[in-house]
Amino acid sequence: MKERGLLIVLSGPSGVGKGTVRQALFAQEDTKFEYSISVTTRKPRQGERDGIDYFFKTREEFENMIENNKLLEWAEYVGNYYGTPVDYVEQTLEDGKDVFLEIEVQGALQVRKAFPEGLFIFLAPPSLSELKNRIVTRGTETEALIENRMNAAKEEIELMDAYDYVVENDNIELACERIKAIVLAEHLRRDRVAPRYKKMLEVE
Amino acid sequence: MKERGLLIVLSGPSGVGKGTVRQALFAQEDTKFEYSISVTTRKPRQGERDGIDYFFKTREEFENMIENNKLLEWAEYVGNYYGTPVDYVEQTLEDGKDVFLEIEVQGALQVRKAFPEGLFIFLAPPSLSELKNRIVTRGTETEALIENRMNAAKEEIELMDAYDYVVENDNIELACERIKAIVLAEHLRRDRVAPRYKKMLEVE
Repeated sequence: MKERGLLIVLSGPSGVGKGTVRQALFAQEDTKFEYSISVTTRKPRQGERDGIDYFFKTREEFENMIENNKLLEWAEYVGNYYGTPVDYVEQTLEDGKDVFLEIEVQGALQVRKAFPEGLFIFLAPPSLSELKNRIVTRGTETEALIENRMNAAKEEIELMDAYDYVVENDNIELACERIKAIVLAEHLRRDRVAPRYKKMLEVE
Repeated sequence: MKERGLLIVLSGPSGVGKGTVRQALFAQEDTKFEYSISVTTRKPRQGERDGIDYFFKTREEFENMIENNKLLEWAEYVGNYYGTPVDYVEQTLEDGKDVFLEIEVQGALQVRKAFPEGLFIFLAPPSLSELKNRIVTRGTETEALIENRMNAAKEEIELMDAYDYVVENDNIELACERIKAIVLAEHLRRDRVAPRYKKMLEVE
């Protein structure tokens, strides 16, 4: 009676500190997520191992994966492909383990389509809630700078709509705690737990 | 821009340890819920203070509260009334504080009608998940005893359907941690957080 794992997607605007939070999470002993290993066409750097840091592929192999729907999401950055292999994710979830993805906003939107039941967490810049103070205590920043920041904030807030939870990254430790609380709480949702109990009683 | 508090309702079958878990929760320094003070017609015991342990009322006063819809839920036990005063709960939520109710299953169903947006947590007896083992390793218990327990378990599992979360009380510390994770996660739900951000940007 193994419970299928949860797909946890951490995303947010670039520069918000997704990678730092992910590293801090995985440095904690009680973190039980499996980190989803990405596929890439870039060359391995010193010390990087295939199947641990990345799955290293040629462009041809990667493009075959795209064609055969073997990627949950993918993108091209500075001439290299990066993507999330769907088989690895599926297999790990089936094994009852939670899978953790840390990806860009565009990738998260792609994953949402394939895995609407995933847990989508938006990592929000603390600057968003500091914004009000900055606006109130003008003078230190130019009007143009504030307006730029306001427009960026509006876009960031609109992005949130595709997510289930919002975690402010005002403090890395706190952000990690919040993410772990979200995952724990999701495992305790009645609509996940009750069917397990019901199944248990059928055993006779 | 004060966020309205959450109404947290902890309930479950009698004997599951609701009171013990509640006391353990409130003994922890970082628990920030307000405990909802009940109204009762029973006499104060030594050391009990009005407005702290209970709101002590006469039967007439209590029946007036029932008539005037001043109780979120109420019941009569061994000749005394017990209930949850709606004004106290409302005021505390408005102040932005989370209110914690620990009540019987029948009371919880009443509260759900008045506060469908509340957070309903079912405390489940560990015996429920031990049941399968007991069934498998028969012999130590009589058939009749197992059947009784099976029927009780079926009723308990049906009760869960009115709740949002299920927390197994296999260990008091763990049960407290799970409850706190649920409350934290609920505060981070996008549909609660995003409107606050949106409101913030309207300040100009």
